[in-house]
Amino acid sequence: MQKIESHACFGGRQEVWSHTATTLGCPMRFGVYLPPQAEREDCPVLYWLSGLTCTEQNFITKAGAQQYAAEHGLILVAADTSPRGEGVPDAEGYDLGQGAGFYLNATRPKWAANFRMYDYVVDELPALVDAHFPTTSARAISGHSMGGHGALMIALKNPGRYRSVSAFSPIAAPSHSPWGEKAFTAYLGEDREAWKAWDATALVGGAREKLPLLIDQGGEDEFLLPQLKPELLRVACEVAKHPLELRIRPGYDHSYYFIASYIGEHIAHHARALHG
Amino acid sequence: MQKIESHACFGGRQEVWSHTATTLGCPMRFGVYLPPQAEREDCPVLYWLSGLTCTEQNFITKAGAQQYAAEHGLILVAADTSPRGEGVPDAEGYDLGQGAGFYLNATRPKWAANFRMYDYVVDELPALVDAHFPTTSARAISGHSMGGHGALMIALKNPGRYRSVSAFSPIAAPSHSPWGEKAFTAYLGEDREAWKAWDATALVGGAREKLPLLIDQGGEDEFLLPQLKPELLRVACEVAKHPLELRIRPGYDHSYYFIASYIGEHIAHHARALHG
Repeated sequence: MQKIESHACFGGRQEVWSHTATTLGCPMRFGVYLPPQAEREDCPVLYWLSGLTCTEQNFITKAGAQQYAAEHGLILVAADTSPRGEGVPDAEGYDLGQGAGFYLNATRPKWAANFRMYDYVVDELPALVDAHFPTTSARAISGHSMGGHGALMIALKNPGRYRSVSAFSPIAAPSHSPWGEKAFTAYLGEDREAWKAWDATALVGGAREKLPLLIDQGGEDEFLLPQLKPELLRVACEVAKHPLELRIRPGYDHSYYFIASYIGEHIAHHARALHG
Repeated sequence: MQKIESHACFGGRQEVWSHTATTLGCPMRFGVYLPPQAEREDCPVLYWLSGLTCTEQNFITKAGAQQYAAEHGLILVAADTSPRGEGVPDAEGYDLGQGAGFYLNATRPKWAANFRMYDYVVDELPALVDAHFPTTSARAISGHSMGGHGALMIALKNPGRYRSVSAFSPIAAPSHSPWGEKAFTAYLGEDREAWKAWDATALVGGAREKLPLLIDQGGEDEFLLPQLKPELLRVACEVAKHPLELRIRPGYDHSYYFIASYIGEHIAHHARALHG
């Protein structure tokens, strides 16, 4: 573990750390915001998963989340979006390979050794965070776009592991999205049955825990169709009687200006679950 | 005037516009945040001047200021830091030429035709903003580092023009700072007497208006010495009996994490003056 950045921020500290990720076979960076409360007590952790092309930097520099984490006493952990580096496979285009890990465990030969973001986010990163920072066992997860889907999918696959889950503008049904179809075909192969284990809309029917899904979606999001399709997840939740709050925000787009506008509400939502 | 970006943000809109700047002889971009109040009434304007290497993007993506502008009904205008483009002179290094205009009017032949950021910020940009957006005549000015100094210097040189002024981590006495000495020598020549017209610490003694200067400065700012030197401005204000509130914030550095932590207090300060 090597500290790359450390900045005072809203009475706490925004840090960036580097470590060698054994699940991914490469060095990885993550952002951690330690609120002022973390100087004297253990705090619950909200994990954030970013969207295509992002690193750990986008959320920590643009979302304005530290203000609310300081208010509510939450640690924020912002993961990178894929393994990276010269020894890691990549592909043409921003939507596959480095910067586009989709938070799954790849099975196809080209990708299987490194592209295990699911194991990294679910197991390796929390173990590292819990070993190095003053955390309680209470965890929540959220994210944006590809990472919004990642948060939903990971929460649905891990009952009891997260106290709450939310998403901004998630790729809600990746098996029915050009981004998702391209990535799942590459990482998992042509067999669409294998995709269902990594698609929140496909998973919701079998979820063993009715953890409510909170989603904010911009009404003017340039990717709403054909990429995001929250109505497919809504139907799946209705059929499965899975609690979903899907809020369409008129006028908002896919950018961090949208996230910044509502991240305070999401952090308050997670704080209620994490401190409850 | 051409609209480059438009995003819903905290109930208002964050826009980026491009126009041909006659004072600078090149196309320029600026950010404008229109709070929700601007849909039904004219609003006062807070101008923001950024630091070395910045464009109009840094403040609008990283400071989190829109939240407070929406709360107080202020329009935010974020200028670029210099003229730009292939036809505009430049120099080696991030601290001279494009990205480093220092908000003055250059007199040396290489720079004099384009590097007139003072005229641009004081006259051309406000005229443009007032013609295109629902503004009142009430203006305030603020900024960071090179732009923090620019805000102080411009307010001191233009009594009555701004209702309030503030700065984060300003290059408080550029004539006594390596950054300032390099830029002033290039733009204004070797004669240090000519520099005094563009140096806030040199100007404060002759200011015809006792507009209070509000400054926040990080105590762990990596540029505090030898670049920023707020103690020189403090002494000048004491001698001139010019009101100054200089707040040293322990632990904070020079980054936007610092600005984000206190921009709410600055905007509240400007809102009191602008709505008063």
